[in-house]
This record gives sequence, structure tokens and C-alpha cells, in this order.
Amino acid sequence: MTQTRQMKLGAFLYPYGHHIAAWRDPAGPIDASINFPSYIELAKTAERGLFDLIFMADSVTVAGGDNESLRRLSYVAWIDPFTLLSGLAAVTSRIGLVCTATTTFDQPYLIARRFASLDLTSGGRAGWNLVTSSNPNEASNFGLDKHMATSERYERAFEFAQIVRGLWKSWDDDAFVRDREACVFSDPEKLHVLDHRGRFYKVRGPLNVARSPQGQPVMVQAGASEDGKNLAAETAEVVFTAQPTLNGAKEFYDDLKSRVSARNRDPDDLKIMPGFFITVGRSKDEAIEKYDRLQKLIHPEVGVKQLYNLTGFDFSGYPIDGPVPDVPPTKEGSSRTNLLVDMARRNGLTIRQLYERIAGGRGHYQVCGSPKDVADEMERWFVEGAADGFNVMAPVLPDGLNDFVDLVIPELQRRKLFRTEYSGRTLRDHLGLRMQ
Amino acid sequence: MTQTRQMKLGAFLYPYGHHIAAWRDPAGPIDASINFPSYIELAKTAERGLFDLIFMADSVTVAGGDNESLRRLSYVAWIDPFTLLSGLAAVTSRIGLVCTATTTFDQPYLIARRFASLDLTSGGRAGWNLVTSSNPNEASNFGLDKHMATSERYERAFEFAQIVRGLWKSWDDDAFVRDREACVFSDPEKLHVLDHRGRFYKVRGPLNVARSPQGQPVMVQAGASEDGKNLAAETAEVVFTAQPTLNGAKEFYDDLKSRVSARNRDPDDLKIMPGFFITVGRSKDEAIEKYDRLQKLIHPEVGVKQLYNLTGFDFSGYPIDGPVPDVPPTKEGSSRTNLLVDMARRNGLTIRQLYERIAGGRGHYQVCGSPKDVADEMERWFVEGAADGFNVMAPVLPDGLNDFVDLVIPELQRRKLFRTEYSGRTLRDHLGLRMQ
Repeated sequence: MTQTRQMKLGAFLYPYGHHIAAWRDPAGPIDASINFPSYIELAKTAERGLFDLIFMADSVTVAGGDNESLRRLSYVAWIDPFTLLSGLAAVTSRIGLVCTATTTFDQPYLIARRFASLDLTSGGRAGWNLVTSSNPNEASNFGLDKHMATSERYERAFEFAQIVRGLWKSWDDDAFVRDREACVFSDPEKLHVLDHRGRFYKVRGPLNVARSPQGQPVMVQAGASEDGKNLAAETAEVVFTAQPTLNGAKEFYDDLKSRVSARNRDPDDLKIMPGFFITVGRSKDEAIEKYDRLQKLIHPEVGVKQLYNLTGFDFSGYPIDGPVPDVPPTKEGSSRTNLLVDMARRNGLTIRQLYERIAGGRGHYQVCGSPKDVADEMERWFVEGAADGFNVMAPVLPDGLNDFVDLVIPELQRRKLFRTEYSGRTLRDHLGLRMQ
Repeated sequence: MTQTRQMKLGAFLYPYGHHIAAWRDPAGPIDASINFPSYIELAKTAERGLFDLIFMADSVTVAGGDNESLRRLSYVAWIDPFTLLSGLAAVTSRIGLVCTATTTFDQPYLIARRFASLDLTSGGRAGWNLVTSSNPNEASNFGLDKHMATSERYERAFEFAQIVRGLWKSWDDDAFVRDREACVFSDPEKLHVLDHRGRFYKVRGPLNVARSPQGQPVMVQAGASEDGKNLAAETAEVVFTAQPTLNGAKEFYDDLKSRVSARNRDPDDLKIMPGFFITVGRSKDEAIEKYDRLQKLIHPEVGVKQLYNLTGFDFSGYPIDGPVPDVPPTKEGSSRTNLLVDMARRNGLTIRQLYERIAGGRGHYQVCGSPKDVADEMERWFVEGAADGFNVMAPVLPDGLNDFVDLVIPELQRRKLFRTEYSGRTLRDHLGLRMQ
């Protein structure tokens, strides 16, 4: 290729912003988690910034835990991200629309149908972030008393992904003849019945959604466990990941790309996009000031709760300004717990210091500085083989996204690391992924 | 009340239009079933006409049956209506958004969540048309070899509706304090855990969607069987119905309203809206000409197939210009089969004549004439106690809807039978339904 390799960028939208105290910042709308017009503005800003995609996380329960900490958290009740993105499809024209949907409780036919439909309404901009659900509070909303084991969740997810992709091939590209004179709407020869019969699912098909502009919506994943990496190597085209160090990120990058090659896929068919929690100001001082203002807004109960959410371990009985205690290994393979405890040990952090470190980025890499500082850091990760792009996490919204678009994007463009206009129409076009 | 009682109107959107040969009419877009911009235009037209709501049907399978007839039908692969309405929410501001979602294969938590989310993004305009799925082709997309019995489907639906409505009460109206100073986001005292444990479902809750503008999205139903009417009397606020005669419609109206009263509900809390298949022209002659043009486009295989879809009986072995043969009683309680066969007997129709009669309206009442003719018929049904309003089915789209808005709406307004502006913001406001 003569064209320079360029970064892929996702705008990871989160109610109020990614900093845990974001909702207390008076700059954003007070009802951000349910304010649809403000989401429309965010989507338009991201599109103005030529982002490849918007990304939205999800879970199928309110934030877990005790009432005392629940009352201080903002991520308790929001708008179903798929419903939200379906709305944003109508008021944007280029940006990719990616959200999470779980394989643990939903039906393959319904997921296949929904994302294919979004691909149609958006003109080829849909992506599905496949997850398995590890939170037992989610299970209890779907009739399960005990949550299923990780290995079973992943086996189901694997089969689930096979079915969804199979259903997306129900119709050939030219299956719809639509010949009004001859009264031939579709060609049954070009319709394929999947007839899947597996260990967990039986799904006949075909899908009752026409073949969509991308052929198949883009497959996204974020699992970092062994099972998660193997599933990604087999089925994903984009991987989001939380990598708190450059070296760790490089290892992850090499590991995952080798797994992709080992499956006879071109490593370039899977794009790795670590989350970057970015505070940017016109100067480094301005950025630090912004960051510190948010840090001061973290309520101690919230910080401790955040640690619990990430590790499954309750630190509330320990002195908040004392050392991080030993955390027993978790039964469910949460790769983030180890990352966090290692970080605390390495840096001799107190509980308060640990939650302050991760409060914003939740284990993601944090950058705080001038546009040049931020672009330097992104360039370093990109050039040194740790990332194909980034999932950009703004501390507060809408300000953090506006800042990124107005300050960082031009700097990346100046360095020829990012596009200056959309060259294609679909999310696959933006990401350089082939039709499926 | 001093205010005159006025009609409620739904715009029943269907790819290409409700006439079975609509897709062959050159006036509409050739790819109407997947053309999102054309749906946006339809929604804006319906809103310009001050309709209470848009309605979209659904099923979770391609049209069933043999390949030869499948190839001639247009309703085989479309956009998931919920995804579509979620998009339309972003580009409309007043009109209600109602679609079908089945209780037979989906999860109560997911349905509750989705419609509550649409209620938030639309500012209080969502409605859920609760159905059970009777088509065995649907069952095979969800791991079921044999379809479950009607009675079980309805028992599940009843429990399903209870859970969904329970989840919609998870948060009190004032549960979200959002006090930035005190760091109190929500008040856990105002959060309610449903903890449903029934015969078919166990769902803990609470819902992770904030209380929506309508309190609860509007509950809609269309079942005409005994089970269907009882479920509607208990849970529905709007009922769509196919009534081919005025007398039959009056009986249905009285029957259903009594069942509502018997459950200690105000009969006015359930609005009955029969489907009206309306061909309107500036004169009666023009309307007839439009209708005849469409009738000529019905391919015989399609007509026979349509009869099969409605009755479950295959007429293809019988002479098309011979009498309608005896149809064995269906196992699944399809109330439409009897209606159709009775109609054929009463009028001495051949198979061709029978399918021509129902091809457009599929068992719904058909009106064809000038704006005055159409308004007369609507007024008669409305005044004589057969309807609280109508689900308007245009033969072809967009023309049929444009015609209705431009020709019939002004006539209804002149008679003070229909609003001249939206007086409220939510679907409940339009329908005169109280908050739930």
C-alpha cells in the first residue's frame, strides 16, 4: 500500500462521561443518561470529528451492590443503547454505530435481525459488540438463580456468533429481483436456510431482513480472558481493550494478532483499539486543572464501590488511606482484577489512591495534557505496534468530546495519522475491512 | 365532558402498502421494505395529518410456504419495526410510535427495557403491540420443533405482560434526585424490586431504564380469540381489530367493553380501532379506478397464497374460478378463517373472487370512494358504537397516505370528528389515556 496507515477512532459515549464523578460536573446536562437530544449532539460532534464510530457499552441490570453506594452512582438507569443508536442513525450519515448486546440472555435470531436492521437504516454503519454476561444480577433478570460458568458462557457465545453470521448470509446480494412486470420479488434460489442444530441452539432461518449494505455488520469484541481472546481471534473484526501500560498493550496486540493468523485470517482483518481516557486542554496545565477538578468530586463511597465493581472485592471495611489489602483470586476470570492489584502493589498505593487512579478510566490508559502531549502518546502506541486505533473516552461530556475534536483531531491530521474526510460510506469502508 | 368525542387514528404502515400487489405499482419506491428515507417521509406525512400514531406489524420469520409463491410476495424480508420506529423517533416530534413484539420468544426484561427506552427517546410516544406467535415457522427460529399450544401461549403472554408492566414501575417519578452538591443521584427508597416468580418466568428487576415520560408505554393488542379478548380486557389500552362488517364490529365493541367493565376498568380506558382499508380519490370514480388498477396486478398464485396465509388451507389444487371448497376447522383458533369462508358462502364467491375481496384489506373492512364517502363510513362506525377510531390502511404507499391526509383528514376536521392540532405531547395525551 502506498497510502499511509492511519488510526481508527471510536468515540466511546457514556452517560455524563467516563469519569466516575462526571455527573457532578455542572457543565453537562443534569439528565444526561436519558437525554436523547444531548446524545444527538454528541453523535454529530463525533461525526464532525470524522470518528470511525460511536461505541456504547451496556449491561442488563442496574448497578449492583448496596443502596448507599447505588444512590451516588449515575450509571444505574439509562437508555438501551441499541434503541439510542437506532435513533442516531436517522440524524447522522457517515459515522459507525456500535453497541454491546449480550449472547448470554438474548436470542441469536433477534440479535441478527436487529443489527442487520440497523445496518439497513444507517446505510451500512452498524457494528455489534458481542459480550457474555458475567454479572449475577443480570442472570436474575432472566430466570437464572445461579449464573452459568464462564466456559459455558463462551461456548454459547461461540455458537451464538456462528448462528448470527450464518443468518446474515440468508440472502445473496442479488436475491431481490423486484421485477414488477414479471411479478418476481425475490429469487428463492438465492435464499439460504441455515438450519443450525448445535449444542445450545437450534435456529432454522432464514433471516427476515434483507442483506444489508455491509453484507454483515462489523463484529466487535472486548474480552481479554483466554476464552475471550480465542473467540475474538475467530470472530471479531474490532477489539476494544483496557490496557494500562504500553508494554502490556504490545503483548496483547502481538498475542491477539498471532491468534488471528493461526486461524488463517489476515491479521489486518482485526483492528485492535485500546481505550484511551483522555483529558486535553489547550495547555498541559489547563488539562491537569480539568482533571483535578473532577478528581475532587469523587465521593469516597463511590471510589470504593468502583473498585468493587472492577474486582468483585469489597474494600469498604479497610482504612481508605491504608494500603490495598490482599485480594483473593476471583472465580470468574476477570482479567482486570489482576491488573489493578498489580498496579497498586507496584506503586504502593492506598485504597483512595488506587480508586483515584482508576476512577476515570476504569483500568484504561489515561492521558492528560496538551494536544501535542495527547497526540504524542497516541502516535507512540500506534507506531510501536500496540494499537490500530483508539476508543476515545472523554472524562466529561459533551466538553471532553468537543475538546478532543477541536484540539486533538487537527493535530493528528497534521501528522497524517488521521483522515481529513470520510472516503467511504460504511463502517467497513472507514475501518478498511472487507465485505463479509 | 363538553368537548366532542373525536376519533383516534393510526397510520398502519406496511412495506409498499396494504394491497397485496402494492409493490408492483410503479408509484412507490422499488425497495420500499428496506428504504428508511421513505419511511421517514411516511412518518412525517402521518404527523402532518395529526395521526395519533404510526403502527407497524411484525413477525419473526420470512413469509412461509412454497418457493413459487414466496418469490411473488413482497413481505418476506424487511426492517425490524422496533429499529425502524427508534429511528423515526429522532425525526418526528408528536406522533405515537407503536409496533408489534412477540411474547412467545422474547424476554420480558428486554421488551420492557426496549419500549421504555423508546418512550424516553421519543419524549413519551411509545406503544407496544403485544402478540403471541402462532406461526410454526417462527418457532423453528427459536429452537422449538413444535409450536406451543394456544392456551399456553396466552398464559405466558398474560404473565409476560404483568412482568413488563411491573418493571415499568421500578422507579418512582421522583426517584432521580440528581443533587450534584450532595452527591445523591437516586433515592434507593424510590426504587422497587419486582422479584416476580411465576409459572413461566422469574424476573427480579428493577429495570435499568429510568421512568419514562408516559409512566408506561401504551399497551396495544390485536387478538380476537376468546383468550385474546380476555387478555386485552385485562391489559390493553388500544385494540386493533379486523372487522369486515359494521354489525360484527358493534358486537365486538360491546363484547370487549363489557369485558373491560367486568374487570373494574373504565371502558373508556381501552380504545377500539378497527382496521379500515381505504382507497380514496377526489371522486368515487377516481377511487374505483385506483382500486381496479391494483386488483389487476394480483398474480393468481399470490391470491391463493394469501388465502393460505389467512386460513392455513391450500386452495391451489382447486379451480381458481370455481366455488370455495369446504375448509376444515383449524386447530389453532384463527378467528379469521371462519370470517372468510362465511363471506364466500354468503356471496357465492369463487376462489379468485374471494382472494380479490380480501387481497387488499386481508379481512379488514374496505372503503373505496370520495372523501365524503370515506368520512361517511368512518362517521357511521364511530357514531354507531363500532369504533373509537381507526387503523388506517393505505392500499399503496406513499400515495395512499398522502391522499388520506390531503383529502379525508380535512373532511373529518370539518365535521369536528378529528383534531385540528395536537393538544398534547405524548401518545397518552393524544389517545386520552391516563398515566400509568
